[in-house]
Amino acid sequence: MTFLVPGFEGSAVESGIRYRGRLDLGLIASAVPAALAGVFTRNEVKAAPVLVGIERLHKGRPYARAIVVNSGNANACTGPEGIAHVHEIHGLAAKEMGINPEEIMSSSTGVIGEPLPMDRIRRAMPALVAGLSDNALDCVADAILTTDTVRKTAIRHLDICGIDITIAGMAKGAGMIGPNMGLPRATMLSFILSDAVVDPAWWQVIVEEAVSDSFNQIIIDGDTSTNDTLLALANGLAGNPIINGNRHGQLFKAVLEDLFQDLAHQLVRGGEGVTKCVTIRVEGARNRDEADKIARTVAKSPLVKTAFFGEDPNWGRILAAAGRAGFPMDQRLIELAFNDVTIVKGGIGVGKEAEEQAKEAMAAEEFSVTLDLGLGKARAQVLASDLSGDYVRINADYRS
Amino acid sequence: MTFLVPGFEGSAVESGIRYRGRLDLGLIASAVPAALAGVFTRNEVKAAPVLVGIERLHKGRPYARAIVVNSGNANACTGPEGIAHVHEIHGLAAKEMGINPEEIMSSSTGVIGEPLPMDRIRRAMPALVAGLSDNALDCVADAILTTDTVRKTAIRHLDICGIDITIAGMAKGAGMIGPNMGLPRATMLSFILSDAVVDPAWWQVIVEEAVSDSFNQIIIDGDTSTNDTLLALANGLAGNPIINGNRHGQLFKAVLEDLFQDLAHQLVRGGEGVTKCVTIRVEGARNRDEADKIARTVAKSPLVKTAFFGEDPNWGRILAAAGRAGFPMDQRLIELAFNDVTIVKGGIGVGKEAEEQAKEAMAAEEFSVTLDLGLGKARAQVLASDLSGDYVRINADYRS
Repeated sequence: MTFLVPGFEGSAVESGIRYRGRLDLGLIASAVPAALAGVFTRNEVKAAPVLVGIERLHKGRPYARAIVVNSGNANACTGPEGIAHVHEIHGLAAKEMGINPEEIMSSSTGVIGEPLPMDRIRRAMPALVAGLSDNALDCVADAILTTDTVRKTAIRHLDICGIDITIAGMAKGAGMIGPNMGLPRATMLSFILSDAVVDPAWWQVIVEEAVSDSFNQIIIDGDTSTNDTLLALANGLAGNPIINGNRHGQLFKAVLEDLFQDLAHQLVRGGEGVTKCVTIRVEGARNRDEADKIARTVAKSPLVKTAFFGEDPNWGRILAAAGRAGFPMDQRLIELAFNDVTIVKGGIGVGKEAEEQAKEAMAAEEFSVTLDLGLGKARAQVLASDLSGDYVRINADYRS
Repeated sequence: MTFLVPGFEGSAVESGIRYRGRLDLGLIASAVPAALAGVFTRNEVKAAPVLVGIERLHKGRPYARAIVVNSGNANACTGPEGIAHVHEIHGLAAKEMGINPEEIMSSSTGVIGEPLPMDRIRRAMPALVAGLSDNALDCVADAILTTDTVRKTAIRHLDICGIDITIAGMAKGAGMIGPNMGLPRATMLSFILSDAVVDPAWWQVIVEEAVSDSFNQIIIDGDTSTNDTLLALANGLAGNPIINGNRHGQLFKAVLEDLFQDLAHQLVRGGEGVTKCVTIRVEGARNRDEADKIARTVAKSPLVKTAFFGEDPNWGRILAAAGRAGFPMDQRLIELAFNDVTIVKGGIGVGKEAEEQAKEAMAAEEFSVTLDLGLGKARAQVLASDLSGDYVRINADYRS
């Protein structure tokens, strides 16, 4: 896959923020000001670049020319100094690029609570800007990785009035994944680039909507990061008739959601120590909120996640997790299936044969669990990982 | 420690419910009808013996003569057949003991969703009853263990008007621990035995109160079981002046709470794969509910728990977990300490030296984390475990 978006260039360098021999500072630049949409972590503890980014979007400057991103250090819990560092980075990049600092956004991911090594960032900036190339967006996708083992990118094309429009995205995030983003949840970073002409106000709305049905529906460990950020830039260079809520909006949104879901899926597949990627559906709920909260409780249960890892169709753990989600239910109405194999009916097990079939379903890297509460018509689903010994190893060793 | 309570006998046998060569069926008997208090899981999915127990307490029969308990099978999600099995067990024990089935309570712990092997229980009942001995309460404490590696018992004595009163308790539970019991969270089982003369209505009230400040404040994996049960019997054989809310109640309650906290602590120390036992305190909250929910969110965070396991004072993960608990906070006011070592002030790290001291504190099996939000005067605390590779191994292998 060639990761090219008209009018966008990328660059990445090894600045030595935390590790040697590893890309850790990236830059995305648009040839012209691009409509900007952004969603950020809802965690009450927010990293400095998140605080600055939210403030900028609230001020109503929905355009940007560039995004600077570093891995290895989250610039979170760093106080006023952390905020000053964000502004300094914007200034450094702006000066080197010959643009306005207000046209730059930034993101950080990595360890919390340590000051950014600004000397290294200052030293690296000239080479970072000089390295901008339309072929190097892939390198930015590498530079944002932390415990991720593989690069996550996706690209889509759509035709509007005979004009080919590109939408592409990159993402990172392998732990601290339980995104809950809005304008003001893993460290999850994602940058979306398009050459479409879009209505800027509509752009923010559909980006938020698409996030809620994609990134916000994935759970690795359920820990919500201080740094989650998705920034979406649309530079308009395709020259299509403007896309908004009335014109081509539904089609564009459908493609955007498909792209987000692809990236979200890649995040779970590439999650820390993940061996299973499980779609957890709750059906037959009284309302969507209930269905969603039950699905999340099941998805976060350590006992359910370890059973996934062990390929054990231990449905009792799933029912027990659903039962502690905080909603009244009638255990006599519950049905549960692994893929299309029903193993619980009327709240009791169907038998050994069904369990054997469920166990076969679980041998695959991807399968689904469908819990029908029998109470109503609402449904929700989340994409969850298992919990493996490797997750523990990675996170017990991460900092030291 | 001699586990003797006047008027109480115990017995345990290997009935072969699930494993060979292991005590799995226990019986506690009181020489005379004993005042009964009970608290059960608040999980919406409840095991058959829990459903029967709740019904009995609601009917207002606050006396019991015996408790039958099995490990290896939870008799949960077993439908009407499971309920019938509970009644059959009560009938079998009553017949063998020559008492009324209504005087018997029961509990089960083990795998969910499989019918109890009633033939084995029927076969074992005569020997179980015949084996009753005042020296064998310890054996019951062994028979209730599942993935627990050590027996958990505690005993206290108090003097009321010159009369020596005994209060003793046994408990089990190493996984699925996040007790939330009331009259209607681990499979946690605990049986409390006393020879005190108590007011039966007051007995239920203080047992519930003592549970909320002990068992309900521990978190291993945060999964709440379908089977959690605490039953407390007071047979009155000490002959003391009756204890109630007005007379000697505060003293008795203090001793009971101390006993419960001892057992709760033993549960965490003996939790599945547990290497650290961490007191998580939240102070400076606006109200107790907020403090409690934030402490629980921190205690359940996989990233915090793996950092405990790794002995990494990764305070950023603690702040991030607190920040996603759902309460507004001001990160600039946050203070955090490991034992008495403050490592975060004003939301930012104090420095490397403090972190090194915190790391030393974490090398012990027990330490505390105190998070001060700086918002108010309310506080709460929970007792939490770490998350180790052994936890995953135990739970990925548990059923198969």
